[in-house]
Amino acid sequence: MAGNSIGKEFIVTSFGESHGKVVGVVVDGCPAGLPLSEADFQEELDRRIPAERKIVSARIEKDNVKILSGVFNGFATGAPIAVMVENKETNSNDYEAIKDLPRPGHSDYPARIKYGGFNDYRGGGRFSGRITVALILAGVIAKKLLNRYNVDVLAYTIAIGNIKSTKKFTAEEIRKNRSQASTRCPDLSCAERMEEAIIAAKAAGDSVGGVVECIALNMPVGVGEPLFDALDADLAKAVFAIPAVKGVEFGAGFRAAELMGSQNNDAFLVEGGKVVTATENAGGVLGGLSNGMPIELRVAIKPTPSIAKEQRTVNLSAMENASITVKGRHDPCVVPKAVPAIEAVVAITLADHMIRSGVIPKVLKAH
Amino acid sequence: MAGNSIGKEFIVTSFGESHGKVVGVVVDGCPAGLPLSEADFQEELDRRIPAERKIVSARIEKDNVKILSGVFNGFATGAPIAVMVENKETNSNDYEAIKDLPRPGHSDYPARIKYGGFNDYRGGGRFSGRITVALILAGVIAKKLLNRYNVDVLAYTIAIGNIKSTKKFTAEEIRKNRSQASTRCPDLSCAERMEEAIIAAKAAGDSVGGVVECIALNMPVGVGEPLFDALDADLAKAVFAIPAVKGVEFGAGFRAAELMGSQNNDAFLVEGGKVVTATENAGGVLGGLSNGMPIELRVAIKPTPSIAKEQRTVNLSAMENASITVKGRHDPCVVPKAVPAIEAVVAITLADHMIRSGVIPKVLKAH
Amino acid sequence: MAGNSIGKEFIVTSFGESHGKVVGVVVDGCPAGLPLSEADFQEELDRRIPAERKIVSARIEKDNVKILSGVFNGFATGAPIAVMVENKETNSNDYEAIKDLPRPGHSDYPARIKYGGFNDYRGGGRFSGRITVALILAGVIAKKLLNRYNVDVLAYTIAIGNIKSTKKFTAEEIRKNRSQASTRCPDLSCAERMEEAIIAAKAAGDSVGGVVECIALNMPVGVGEPLFDALDADLAKAVFAIPAVKGVEFGAGFRAAELMGSQNNDAFLVEGGKVVTATENAGGVLGGLSNGMPIELRVAIKPTPSIAKEQRTVNLSAMENASITVKGRHDPCVVPKAVPAIEAVVAITLADHMIRSGVIPKVLKAH
Amino acid sequence: MAGNSIGKEFIVTSFGESHGKVVGVVVDGCPAGLPLSEADFQEELDRRIPAERKIVSARIEKDNVKILSGVFNGFATGAPIAVMVENKETNSNDYEAIKDLPRPGHSDYPARIKYGGFNDYRGGGRFSGRITVALILAGVIAKKLLNRYNVDVLAYTIAIGNIKSTKKFTAEEIRKNRSQASTRCPDLSCAERMEEAIIAAKAAGDSVGGVVECIALNMPVGVGEPLFDALDADLAKAVFAIPAVKGVEFGAGFRAAELMGSQNNDAFLVEGGKVVTATENAGGVLGGLSNGMPIELRVAIKPTPSIAKEQRTVNLSAMENASITVKGRHDPCVVPKAVPAIEAVVAITLADHMIRSGVIPKVLKAH
Repeated sequence: MAGNSIGKEFIVTSFGESHGKVVGVVVDGCPAGLPLSEADFQEELDRRIPAERKIVSARIEKDNVKILSGVFNGFATGAPIAVMVENKETNSNDYEAIKDLPRPGHSDYPARIKYGGFNDYRGGGRFSGRITVALILAGVIAKKLLNRYNVDVLAYTIAIGNIKSTKKFTAEEIRKNRSQASTRCPDLSCAERMEEAIIAAKAAGDSVGGVVECIALNMPVGVGEPLFDALDADLAKAVFAIPAVKGVEFGAGFRAAELMGSQNNDAFLVEGGKVVTATENAGGVLGGLSNGMPIELRVAIKPTPSIAKEQRTVNLSAMENASITVKGRHDPCVVPKAVPAIEAVVAITLADHMIRSGVIPKVLKAH
Repeated sequence: MAGNSIGKEFIVTSFGESHGKVVGVVVDGCPAGLPLSEADFQEELDRRIPAERKIVSARIEKDNVKILSGVFNGFATGAPIAVMVENKETNSNDYEAIKDLPRPGHSDYPARIKYGGFNDYRGGGRFSGRITVALILAGVIAKKLLNRYNVDVLAYTIAIGNIKSTKKFTAEEIRKNRSQASTRCPDLSCAERMEEAIIAAKAAGDSVGGVVECIALNMPVGVGEPLFDALDADLAKAVFAIPAVKGVEFGAGFRAAELMGSQNNDAFLVEGGKVVTATENAGGVLGGLSNGMPIELRVAIKPTPSIAKEQRTVNLSAMENASITVKGRHDPCVVPKAVPAIEAVVAITLADHMIRSGVIPKVLKAH
Repeated sequence: MAGNSIGKEFIVTSFGESHGKVVGVVVDGCPAGLPLSEADFQEELDRRIPAERKIVSARIEKDNVKILSGVFNGFATGAPIAVMVENKETNSNDYEAIKDLPRPGHSDYPARIKYGGFNDYRGGGRFSGRITVALILAGVIAKKLLNRYNVDVLAYTIAIGNIKSTKKFTAEEIRKNRSQASTRCPDLSCAERMEEAIIAAKAAGDSVGGVVECIALNMPVGVGEPLFDALDADLAKAVFAIPAVKGVEFGAGFRAAELMGSQNNDAFLVEGGKVVTATENAGGVLGGLSNGMPIELRVAIKPTPSIAKEQRTVNLSAMENASITVKGRHDPCVVPKAVPAIEAVVAITLADHMIRSGVIPKVLKAH
Repeated sequence: MAGNSIGKEFIVTSFGESHGKVVGVVVDGCPAGLPLSEADFQEELDRRIPAERKIVSARIEKDNVKILSGVFNGFATGAPIAVMVENKETNSNDYEAIKDLPRPGHSDYPARIKYGGFNDYRGGGRFSGRITVALILAGVIAKKLLNRYNVDVLAYTIAIGNIKSTKKFTAEEIRKNRSQASTRCPDLSCAERMEEAIIAAKAAGDSVGGVVECIALNMPVGVGEPLFDALDADLAKAVFAIPAVKGVEFGAGFRAAELMGSQNNDAFLVEGGKVVTATENAGGVLGGLSNGMPIELRVAIKPTPSIAKEQRTVNLSAMENASITVKGRHDPCVVPKAVPAIEAVVAITLADHMIRSGVIPKVLKAH
């Protein structure tokens, strides 16, 4: 059973391949009445590009967004919203040559086995980072929806390789700073060193990974559907849709495993007539439910598997050892591109759960 | 929309509360022909108890498993399998008193808001560790199914607080050692120090967390359903069904974020006519698909939130600050109990995906 | 992929077999705050029995309902509600003898093939009318929920064999009359002739079928989720969960195919400040959405396949022609038993869609 | 929760509106290896048009099919297949004028209430017969898949208004005859009278309905997933995705309700080493499972609600009685257009269940 849809109320179905005609999504369950235009999507896609130019392999031609359905007179109609961008500049020649030589760290090998060799292997096909562009499109809808209910989702880089930023920033600072930093790290002095590390890795024919943090502010209390569809469970699942993710943690995360209960428990306080916690080790989730504090999660991104260095692999037809040098346009670090994608899937998951728990209604406002 | 079911082919629906009549599951989609008896379940539940006695609050009366449906003449019939245990020794008096005082680190507060105060708060209700007993029941079915296809799932403790074990063991050693260690850590000298740490925490009215590792051996290649139902995505989601989980990582995990691509990529080799990898940083998953190497994941467990020390909280009726001392029977460390639960949800997820990918058929063998 | 759950917000999972230990359901998604007790279920089950005694094979010992989970202090908690009855008086000897001889009109033959012979064939196993008792339990919850929003669901017999009732009755009359009539037909003079027809069929070692009509009053406008989860689509699907159903139609139904558009279209009118229709050919559904008029559907029930007369069949082991005389306790007409089951599945479907469309909230009323 | 997807293994997601840019589908779960080209889709769409010209409002410009994803080198890859046609010749002026005047028999009124007035009402929007073009696209994939396993699905008209055909035809005759008959009735003398009835209705500013029969030949035994996802249940649900459907029945259907058990039961026979039935009252389904005989269902189609005659309606803004004369291009009978749509949804449902039961594998054949 295929698994290209996610969500139970805000249902995102992904389609498209890296070197196929398009990448796109169908969003079923967007409440009628949400204002929506092609410009909303375009703006989000455009914003991603410039600062990254130095360190990532951004396709030069701009992605043009097309809304195919579900929007009428500037508003979501309640019908499924299909939205897509066409693929351009796809040079598939590089891939034909290495069809039998699976790239280490890539899905080439298990994908070939799973799909009996019928999968579109060009540029990683369905497994390409390119697919995240469509997630970002769905994320635009989710974020507009969440914003209407004051929820603000923000992702940003906090580590590249061994360079780690621990400074905390306001939402406003994060937005402003990350737009300037090629690495999307709001800690600008850190960001500079990160950029250098990426350029150095590239020069060495190598790559680096990193960690992306994502917060969601102003979440209402009680969102999430345990036992299985706990809020943290569904967020954890969602981030793995992004290639290169190898781990996720909430609040104190793996560090919580080293704390005593008396250190890790967040004491409750009444503050301004609201229940808050004195610390935020829980990452905004208790028992799978939002607790009203900021949602905070961190996502580990592995170094790009496509590197210029020669690597050992196997020839799957001959079933013998071989070596491979991956050619073509490759990012020495996918973390900057992962930032908006993680923001998108977190927003998608929160929008889904906000509708599931009844906080966001099925129709936003009648004419 | 409630979320008490997981899986798309091997579908587990959980029911029951900590202090209600029962905890149980319905498993829909178990292939007809799997041999199954109450003894299979009983054995798994019984095995958990003795060694843990020193450090956990095991209910003294034995859990008796009842199969309600789906098994006939010793085999799964293809119909839904309902299986449950009754709750005994539930002393609910301790909870009534603290109804208005949410325990820090617990779901009490968001659950009360979400369910409008109608939730069964006794012993944590649906949010109790007790619910994992039912997961273990479903896991028994999943493991029997997987074993038939040679897949072996094993969870064990690798850290309690700051005490960490890094030694590697064979499956046989893990099974043998963890049955002796109260903490379920196969590294027995480590296990002893872990036990001491737990006893010390208890003596201090405090608690500790830890890390559980889980491996799955002999997985076939190509299991998983990206984009969204990637194997790692669904495993990550599943482990969050267990209370106190705060993070999950695969293979090198968060450490991968610090490696160079040339270090992190696992080179492919032909070995004995099979494709293997020289290293195992991927944790057995590439692009959301199993790659034929052992699945390896680690799960961060926070320290038990129920501690004897006085803590700050709020009175939700009066909306004023208050303090709480949690009474009753509590484990100073839930990691040992999390071990079989994690093993169970990993097995459930793998069984589901083995059926989804067509490796396990719908009927095991006709009479 | 097994299919023992129905609904997307009010999710009913069925388990149990005719001659197994129990039949039961888990209902996930019942809004917290619905008052619920074992007496609610018991009353519904008890009400079914007495009048039917003359013509159906009611098990003599009373079914005792047990709520296993999801109810606390007399209210639904928001957690899954498991509820079941134990099977008694199961005499399985009659079935062993005919294991290889599939009964004409029964599922015996395809079930044996599908489940590789592992299915519980005693009394029809999962395919028995006994399974509808569990549907009725889920229906009790659905009806209590709907009643709170003024929706009233009523099923009743309108035909047994060739005897057809065309008189219209008020909801009150239907309730009163059908409780008196063994055949559950509110047209009491008709009901008497129906009873005679059933008794005559029994005397001849034969059986009869019939038609059940079901209405739902006071449905709000706009409930249903086209394209695929149209209200009529999901109602049509649901009724086929009841053994012996062979057709379903809404409003004018198959007769609409013979009308002109000018005859079949229901003109809109404003009446008492509300939009109503002058006629009710649509059966309360337009474009898959409720239109505010009574939902009206009719369900065709085939004659009971278990008849005393000798019938031709095959011996599946020997693969040769054979004959069979079905022994044991059998109803000459299952229509009276289908009435509450159809009422239940219609209520379940409407409750699901009322939550899906946001009319019924996730929590009914906070304490 | 929106409902624009159907199926659990062969999952069809529909998008698009009558007067929007496109109508399309995403098919997730098509087994890798199925040969597929734009020509396959185009051929099916083209075949529909010519004979119908006399009696339906076929858009004159040809629909051009575009495959957006999921096909590579002429084969399905295992990734989601997005396929669509653009809408042309949409004249939306006629609709603006009647925005406040819901057309009797149409979804206008409940759709406006449900979506708070945000729905695209032009040409019926999501509720238009135009949406069935996308279903036909998905059906092309399903039929190619089924054909590979010898299953042949065929729909055809058997009644228009009061003109009914009762003659039986071979699959070959049906295919040949229905392509010639504007009404898609294989009984050609009947077909002529049907055509006259449609032309007469049109002349009178009125419309007629009819009945479509659909058969599926060579189905294997045991396909279907009771309790709820019974084969007949899912087929019944699927046909209601087609506008104007008001009823569905299998085999003897509503007539079975009038038969005695001894008449309705289909005796089993061994014939050519296979189990068959002497009669076919069951319509190929027993207990929700295919029994190896031809699936046979009939679908009631109401007369087109759009008629030229003046009708009573209400002004929804003024909330007062009004009258309406529906302008624009309308079919006096939608039955001919419903034929390929019903064939498509039946094929989609059977393909889904053939995969669910394991008869059709996940990958068709490795390279």
